[in-house]
Amino acid sequence: MSQFMLRALELAEKARGKTSPNPMVGAVIVRDGAIVGEGFHLRAGEHHAEIIALEQAGENARGATLYINLEPCCHYGKTPPCTDAIIAAGIRQVHMAILDPNPLVQGKGKRILEEAGIETSVGCCAQQALQLNEVFCYWIEHKLPFVIAKFAMSLDGKIATKTGHSRWISSQESRLFGHRIRNEIDAIIVGANTVKKDNPMLTTRLENTEVQHPIRVVIDSKGGLPHEAKIFSDGLPGQTILATTIPQRFPKNVEVMVLPQSDQGVCTNALLKELGKRGITSVLLEGGGTILSSFLANNHVNKILAFIAPMIIGGKEAPSPVAGEGINYIEEAFVLKDLQVSRLAGDILISGYCKRGENV
Amino acid sequence: MSQFMLRALELAEKARGKTSPNPMVGAVIVRDGAIVGEGFHLRAGEHHAEIIALEQAGENARGATLYINLEPCCHYGKTPPCTDAIIAAGIRQVHMAILDPNPLVQGKGKRILEEAGIETSVGCCAQQALQLNEVFCYWIEHKLPFVIAKFAMSLDGKIATKTGHSRWISSQESRLFGHRIRNEIDAIIVGANTVKKDNPMLTTRLENTEVQHPIRVVIDSKGGLPHEAKIFSDGLPGQTILATTIPQRFPKNVEVMVLPQSDQGVCTNALLKELGKRGITSVLLEGGGTILSSFLANNHVNKILAFIAPMIIGGKEAPSPVAGEGINYIEEAFVLKDLQVSRLAGDILISGYCKRGENV
Repeated sequence: MSQFMLRALELAEKARGKTSPNPMVGAVIVRDGAIVGEGFHLRAGEHHAEIIALEQAGENARGATLYINLEPCCHYGKTPPCTDAIIAAGIRQVHMAILDPNPLVQGKGKRILEEAGIETSVGCCAQQALQLNEVFCYWIEHKLPFVIAKFAMSLDGKIATKTGHSRWISSQESRLFGHRIRNEIDAIIVGANTVKKDNPMLTTRLENTEVQHPIRVVIDSKGGLPHEAKIFSDGLPGQTILATTIPQRFPKNVEVMVLPQSDQGVCTNALLKELGKRGITSVLLEGGGTILSSFLANNHVNKILAFIAPMIIGGKEAPSPVAGEGINYIEEAFVLKDLQVSRLAGDILISGYCKRGENV
Repeated sequence: MSQFMLRALELAEKARGKTSPNPMVGAVIVRDGAIVGEGFHLRAGEHHAEIIALEQAGENARGATLYINLEPCCHYGKTPPCTDAIIAAGIRQVHMAILDPNPLVQGKGKRILEEAGIETSVGCCAQQALQLNEVFCYWIEHKLPFVIAKFAMSLDGKIATKTGHSRWISSQESRLFGHRIRNEIDAIIVGANTVKKDNPMLTTRLENTEVQHPIRVVIDSKGGLPHEAKIFSDGLPGQTILATTIPQRFPKNVEVMVLPQSDQGVCTNALLKELGKRGITSVLLEGGGTILSSFLANNHVNKILAFIAPMIIGGKEAPSPVAGEGINYIEEAFVLKDLQVSRLAGDILISGYCKRGENV
C-alpha cells in the first residue's frame, strides 16, 4: 500500500517549484495490484493530478483504488472539483496521505467521497507528505509565506572577512544549490545594505533548465538606494519590490510598496502579510545579518539553511550570519528542530526548522 | 590478510590515550589461517604488543605470520628490541601497516628482520594505521605536540551571547565527548582570559572509568592571574604550568615556565617545543578566541573539532570561536582537509585537519 503512496509522492515532487500557489500533488490509480494510471499537478491552472491519472486509467478506474498525497479538492477553483471526477469514474477506494491543510475545507473532500460510497483512509506516508508540501501547508493555514533563511559561513562562523570580502566562502556546488532553491521559491528578500554592498542580481542562474526568477524584494527604511543597482535596472521582466516606509519614485518596473513603520524600520509583519495575500507562498531570506536578526526576533523564519565551508577566517571584526542585538542568555536562543546534515562537495549543509509562531 | 591487520588495529585502539609518549600498537600472530596469539601495548614501560602476542603463541609462533600496525622496534628503550624476540621465536613473515615514523629509525626494524631471513611487507591498512597514530607520528617526526583545537558554537557561529553567557551551548553528550578527549590527550592549553572569565577546572570528569587528567597549561603574558583560580588551587596531583614571559611566584604545584616573548605575547613556538621535549605528544586547545587565532596564525594547529549546536544566538557583539586579527581575503583562509561529520545527540561535530607547517 505505502509503495503506491510513495510513488504518488515521487510524482508530486516532479513539479517542485512550479505549482505555486498550489501544492505539489501526485496520484496513482491501482487495480488488481497494478498501476493503471498516474499523474501529477504541473502548475496552477492546469489539470490536477487525479484528473490526469483518471484519464490515463480510463475504464480501468472503475472499482480501482486511488493513492494521492493530498485530499482531493471539492470546490470550483480554476478547475472543477476533483471529487466529482473521482465519483464519476467509479473509484472504489481513496487513500490520501494528509487532509487539505486549509482549516476551512479540511475533510470536506473526504466526506463527499464517503457520502458517495467510496472507502477512504488518511495518514499513509503523512510525514513525507507534510514535508513535501511544508511551504503550501504553512501558507494556506497562516496566509503568510514560508520563510527560509539561507547563509554561508566558514567553520568558525564568519560570513566574510573583516574587510567584507566573501567571494567565495561556499563551494561552487553549494552556490549551484542556492540557485536551485531560487528556482523553487516565489520571492527573495534582502536588506538595503546587501544591495549597497554586494549589488547582487538575485536571479536564478542555472544551465540546461528552464529557470524562474523569484520576485525580488528589498527592505529599505532609509531611502536613497541607487536606481542603478542591478536589481532595479537589469530590465528583468520579473517584478522587483522596494519595501519601504518612505514614498519615493522609481522606474516603473520597480514597485514601491509603502508599509507601516515598526521599531526596527519597515514592519516586516505587514510585508509578509501583503506577500502572502498576493499568493507568494515562499520567501528566501538571503541577508544580511541585521535583516536575519530582525526576522528571527519577530518569529518570521520557518527554516534555516546553513552552508558551512571547510575554512577558518578568524578575526574579531569579521561578521557572522546573524547580527542585531541578539540574546543575553543561552536559554533564550532560537532552537532548531529536525536538523538534517548533508555534504555538498567540500561544504556541509545543515538545515533545521524554527518553531515559528511559538514562544521561543 | 587485511582482516588480521584490522584486528591488530582494533587491539591497538584498546589502549587509546594510555600509551603516550608511545604509539598504540596491536599484534596478531597467525598460523594456518588461525590466530594463535595477539596482544596490544598497554602503556609506556610495559610489554610491546608483539612480545605479548609471541608469549601467547608460544611454540605456535614458529613458522607463523605476524601482523602489526607499526614496524617493530630494533633498539633498546625501556624494553629490549622486539626484532630480536621475533627472530628468536621463528616467525616466518611480518606484515606491518606502516614503518616507524621516526625518520632516524624508519625501515631499520624491517631490514633487521629481512637480514634474518624473514619475509616482510609494508602498507596493508596503512591509511587506518596512520590515522590511529596521527598524534604519535606527528610528535616523533617533528618533536612537537599534535595540537587539537576544540570549540562549541551555535549554528550562527557564536561561542557565547553578547553578555558572555555560554552554559550550555553544546549538549550534555558533546560535553561528555569533550571529557573523553581530555582523557586521551597529554595536555590542555587555555589563555589567561579563559581562566579569568570562566575559572575552569580543566580536569577529566567521566564516570565509571579510570580517568587521567591532562597537564594544564595557561598562557599568560600579562601576569597577575589569581592564585585562587581553580586550576592553581584545587590541589590536583597533576601538573599545572603557567606559560609566561614574566617570572613570578606561585604555589609549588604550579610550574612557572618563563618563555621568550613574541609579537603576540608568549612565544607559543617555544612553548610547544618545550612540551614536545618533555614527551607531551598531544595538546587540546580549548580557547579562547585570541589564543586560537594566534595558534592558527602560527600554523600550530593540526586538527579542529567544532561542535555545532542547533540554536541561533545572534548579536553583532556576541563572540565567535576565532578572534584576533583574521584575514583580509578569502583566498588567505585556513583550509581544512578530510572533513568528517557526525551527530552527537542534538549537536553536530565537524572535524578536519589543518595543513600545519605548509604555507596556507
